[in-house]
Amino acid sequence: MSGNRIVDEDIASAASSRRHADNVPYVHKVGVPPKQSLFKEFKFTFKETFFHDDPLRPFKHQSISRKFLLGIQAVFPILEWGRRYKLSMFKGDLIAGLTIASLCIPQDIAYAKLANLDPQFGLYSSFVPPLIYAIMGTSRDIAIGPVAVMSLLLGSMLQEEIDPKHKLEYQSLAFTATFFAGVTQFVLGFFRLGFLIDYLSHAAIIGFMAGAAITISLQQLKGLLGIKNFTKKTDLVSVMRSVWTNLHHGWNWETIVIGVAFLAFLFLAKYMGKKKKKFFWVAAIAPLISVIISTFFVYITHAEKKGVQIVKHIEKGINPSSLHKIHFTGSYVATGFRIGAVTGLIGLTEAVAIGRTFAAMKDYHLDGNKEMVALGTMNVIGSMTSCFVTTGGFARTAVNCMAGCNTAVSNIVMSCVVILTLEVITPLFKYTPNAILSSIIISAVVGLFDYEAMILIFKIDKFDFVACIGAFFGVVFVSVEIGLLIAVALSIAKILLQVTRPPTAVLGKIPRTTVYRSIQQYPEATKVPGVLIVRVDSAIYFSNSNYIKERVLRLLDDEEEGLKENNQPRIQYLIVEMSAVTDIDTSGIHALEDLYKSLRKRDVQLVLANPGQKVLDKLHTSDFANTIGDDKIFLSVGDAVKTLAPNMEP
Amino acid sequence: MSGNRIVDEDIASAASSRRHADNVPYVHKVGVPPKQSLFKEFKFTFKETFFHDDPLRPFKHQSISRKFLLGIQAVFPILEWGRRYKLSMFKGDLIAGLTIASLCIPQDIAYAKLANLDPQFGLYSSFVPPLIYAIMGTSRDIAIGPVAVMSLLLGSMLQEEIDPKHKLEYQSLAFTATFFAGVTQFVLGFFRLGFLIDYLSHAAIIGFMAGAAITISLQQLKGLLGIKNFTKKTDLVSVMRSVWTNLHHGWNWETIVIGVAFLAFLFLAKYMGKKKKKFFWVAAIAPLISVIISTFFVYITHAEKKGVQIVKHIEKGINPSSLHKIHFTGSYVATGFRIGAVTGLIGLTEAVAIGRTFAAMKDYHLDGNKEMVALGTMNVIGSMTSCFVTTGGFARTAVNCMAGCNTAVSNIVMSCVVILTLEVITPLFKYTPNAILSSIIISAVVGLFDYEAMILIFKIDKFDFVACIGAFFGVVFVSVEIGLLIAVALSIAKILLQVTRPPTAVLGKIPRTTVYRSIQQYPEATKVPGVLIVRVDSAIYFSNSNYIKERVLRLLDDEEEGLKENNQPRIQYLIVEMSAVTDIDTSGIHALEDLYKSLRKRDVQLVLANPGQKVLDKLHTSDFANTIGDDKIFLSVGDAVKTLAPNMEP
Repeated sequence: MSGNRIVDEDIASAASSRRHADNVPYVHKVGVPPKQSLFKEFKFTFKETFFHDDPLRPFKHQSISRKFLLGIQAVFPILEWGRRYKLSMFKGDLIAGLTIASLCIPQDIAYAKLANLDPQFGLYSSFVPPLIYAIMGTSRDIAIGPVAVMSLLLGSMLQEEIDPKHKLEYQSLAFTATFFAGVTQFVLGFFRLGFLIDYLSHAAIIGFMAGAAITISLQQLKGLLGIKNFTKKTDLVSVMRSVWTNLHHGWNWETIVIGVAFLAFLFLAKYMGKKKKKFFWVAAIAPLISVIISTFFVYITHAEKKGVQIVKHIEKGINPSSLHKIHFTGSYVATGFRIGAVTGLIGLTEAVAIGRTFAAMKDYHLDGNKEMVALGTMNVIGSMTSCFVTTGGFARTAVNCMAGCNTAVSNIVMSCVVILTLEVITPLFKYTPNAILSSIIISAVVGLFDYEAMILIFKIDKFDFVACIGAFFGVVFVSVEIGLLIAVALSIAKILLQVTRPPTAVLGKIPRTTVYRSIQQYPEATKVPGVLIVRVDSAIYFSNSNYIKERVLRLLDDEEEGLKENNQPRIQYLIVEMSAVTDIDTSGIHALEDLYKSLRKRDVQLVLANPGQKVLDKLHTSDFANTIGDDKIFLSVGDAVKTLAPNMEP
Repeated sequence: MSGNRIVDEDIASAASSRRHADNVPYVHKVGVPPKQSLFKEFKFTFKETFFHDDPLRPFKHQSISRKFLLGIQAVFPILEWGRRYKLSMFKGDLIAGLTIASLCIPQDIAYAKLANLDPQFGLYSSFVPPLIYAIMGTSRDIAIGPVAVMSLLLGSMLQEEIDPKHKLEYQSLAFTATFFAGVTQFVLGFFRLGFLIDYLSHAAIIGFMAGAAITISLQQLKGLLGIKNFTKKTDLVSVMRSVWTNLHHGWNWETIVIGVAFLAFLFLAKYMGKKKKKFFWVAAIAPLISVIISTFFVYITHAEKKGVQIVKHIEKGINPSSLHKIHFTGSYVATGFRIGAVTGLIGLTEAVAIGRTFAAMKDYHLDGNKEMVALGTMNVIGSMTSCFVTTGGFARTAVNCMAGCNTAVSNIVMSCVVILTLEVITPLFKYTPNAILSSIIISAVVGLFDYEAMILIFKIDKFDFVACIGAFFGVVFVSVEIGLLIAVALSIAKILLQVTRPPTAVLGKIPRTTVYRSIQQYPEATKVPGVLIVRVDSAIYFSNSNYIKERVLRLLDDEEEGLKENNQPRIQYLIVEMSAVTDIDTSGIHALEDLYKSLRKRDVQLVLANPGQKVLDKLHTSDFANTIGDDKIFLSVGDAVKTLAPNMEP
């Protein structure tokens, strides 16, 4: 006790003598900016939320006619880049277009089956949508068409409503869903709500996609094993049970031989393409080659008579109109809207993620909201021309890019090839065995199972990994929709949890600097005697205000306990470093007031360091700045320590 | 133009000469702490989420028998404070208990009517629950009993399911709901999920409560105007229409005279209590005086024969058991659970908010989760003893505190008075006019309309105000449940929006310091030529990673545009100040990678300043730290500028 007092006095006397010797330390005032008007504040928030990418910037300082032209160009970017299009670019686009056409034709037929639709609908969907996208899209690399996950999602959600055997009703609902998928995408883009898709975290998407890859592959066991009575459920347990019960009577060995042989071929081609980048085209045309060879093989051996299931019939000719099939009234509108909204959102997530990846690679700007408008228009028009939901597929886009595409012209080329196919050679697909389509789907979706990304996620963020695995198991063991729901729920839970339990740190002074940092990260940082410096690492909102208050008080308790044990002087100042406190609300101010009251009872002074503009403004508005005193608010922790405990600085 | 260049050269030469004179500037290394094990990391997160208040601290380093004793004391805090209870404390508790009893008896009868239950149930609910709370609760100030908002919520949700005229079925469901309210509260507390109630923001609660005050007052027009055929809906439009259509035949003038006269008296008493703190007891006993006078008045004038509605019958005696009335099976279980969960959560929100307020005022610690267990147990036992949902009421608690309560003994005193009332004087309430009960309710709930808090919210945070008003209008114009839903939805939307569009700031050097701050907040701060310093004010997560990347690039665009116009040197370094970046996930790392690629194309170097422990760890795990180079990561912006652009420092 008495020793304590002596130490105190020693320090005090030493400090006072030093203070006399030194000049008064320079302390910069805390900036109190002029108050923003309500309108200005609102305008800023509104702009950052909906127009953060400043899409209207080129329109500034332009004549009206120029503005009109720019507006037209903004809706139809082809008018802008088309004028700069050179014949030299066409070579790349042509090769890329032919390559993705050869990849997409077999895939389209296969994906149509995944959606429980007749094969020609897959080809229809690779004709109209790519054309619309070429006119309205801003990505130079995306290749448009049906994709596996959306086809599965559409198919599994549709067949819960209508049995696919009722072809016309089923198609009607499919086009209705496609229409509403387009409307959803368009509305999100038009009202610049595109940021909503960002709430589906990368990790959750990885898990969801991996689960979808498993589910889709499992579904292909039907075609690959030649099973006729297959379950309609998509979960692992049901499918395996179905496969098992069909073991003795349902499996068709000829089908299995064909299927597995070509699956091996496709994987080999894929492996080659991956191993040597310049052989990417091997992987790209392998599906078409498989189709041609297997079709020829079935045709000459008449394997279809031995139970090998074949495509049988595929409609010839250009897309028929399907406007009359869309439900605009009646009970199916709500169902169609629900299915469409879900598939549409998944489509957006996929296309925007892919578009951004390739835009970053080639360093051009991609306007997410404009993309959504383009994708939406494409699906709305698609739904009226017998197409089902389409988006930018990852594999297709990667092939497009590697084949040297320069602009969306490659989509137009692909579209032309598809229409030629529809007009001329579809009858040849009659003998194509279904097993080949299954093999093609499996070899296509296997890339969706991105285990490397999963490992990285596990390494980097454990909670992300939980979201990833949750979505994965949801898809594999329950259903695609449940998996999606889990993905969204866990993504949002992560954000909420982070805001509810923000980190805090005790700071110390880094030797030979005036900088204060976390003593956990920098063990060499030294605490200032008599002063506890706590950094709060989040905006103080209702969801965390109470936690922060209690956390700070607990840090003080811990500190004082330690000091007591070592007989050191007690804490006189609690400095809250507020650099990271970007905002505060009424609950936050109440928490600070409660903190202030509690500290006063303990005879500890509350000091704030470096509050930001917004926070400072609110501290003044709420009068809390006056409560604790303006002289207790500093520019930096260094200034606070210099002023309040000049003799204590280590 | 040329002047500009000269200034630049001046600075450069001055700086270089200075460098030769000085030593090489001291640059502290960035702290790379040892990697935490998965288990440790998980343990920390788990602890901070569920046990942030360290409830097990007193159990450390204790013998087993002592631990057992502490455990019993933790469940029944009365064993702990009861041993320290002194007779001197009892005086305060006795007076406080008598005061709140006089306030609560008339309120209880009135609130029972609000829940469409017979008046004695209100009194029952002020007998058992306060006793349980006194044994298990940790707050010294809270006074337990039925409260207006929960009673209304219970009543309005129940009467949607069962007509209150079917008394027995209605009571059954009421007790079932109360049971599940208790279970919900208990479970939340027991599993330490209490933080979930923090997602209802203060602002939303203020709006919800104000709306409830209006709704409850409107409901009282029935009693106050003596209307017999009153609407069952609670929204403003329905109620006003009901009042209007009853104007000519339904209003009872005698009732109105009595009701309005006593309402005026109650308001006067309230005003006095508010004006002079020492007269608070006037407001507290005014309701009881009103009841006594008006009952006496009706008794002698036989006003009940002129259409003045009276209580008529009120059961005498102690709480009967209601265990047999609770539905544990059947279709009403789900309904009861839904109603119970909603009212239970509202009850928690109210009690915990009140408890915290008074705990902060008197500086003692309140364990939110323990409180929830106490409240839950109290409602579960209450539901078995004919009580409906109870919680800590604000007005009652404030009176309790002002009357000088010291411990929960005041609740026990109140409880005793209530049981005496039930046993002895209930028959006297027979002639109490309903209009008086309505007046008491109105004068009680008017305080829930906290317009001062609303104004403060408007001043401090506009989005909070939107949540507040949204909840308010939801309650007033639609229903209490919709209002609640709006309140929760807007509260969560606020968190999500904040995480999606985090603030960024361009920094400059504060003159005469080594500190870099936002040039918007500190206009005197000067930029470093050739260097753009951007502070990102949030964890970089999937929901904002893309926005942050684009925002930083846009700031660079803006800056370079300005520099080009002024013919100044272009930006060579982009320093991202990461103090506030508390965490980063895989999407965030991808965004940084994309940013790095874009910057490389522009020949701008990406530099990171002051990344925290967690972030640094992840940058290394993901190999991004190697990509940009460890020498591009600095302890502070000052160090980065000193090292990279030593001649440029302003």
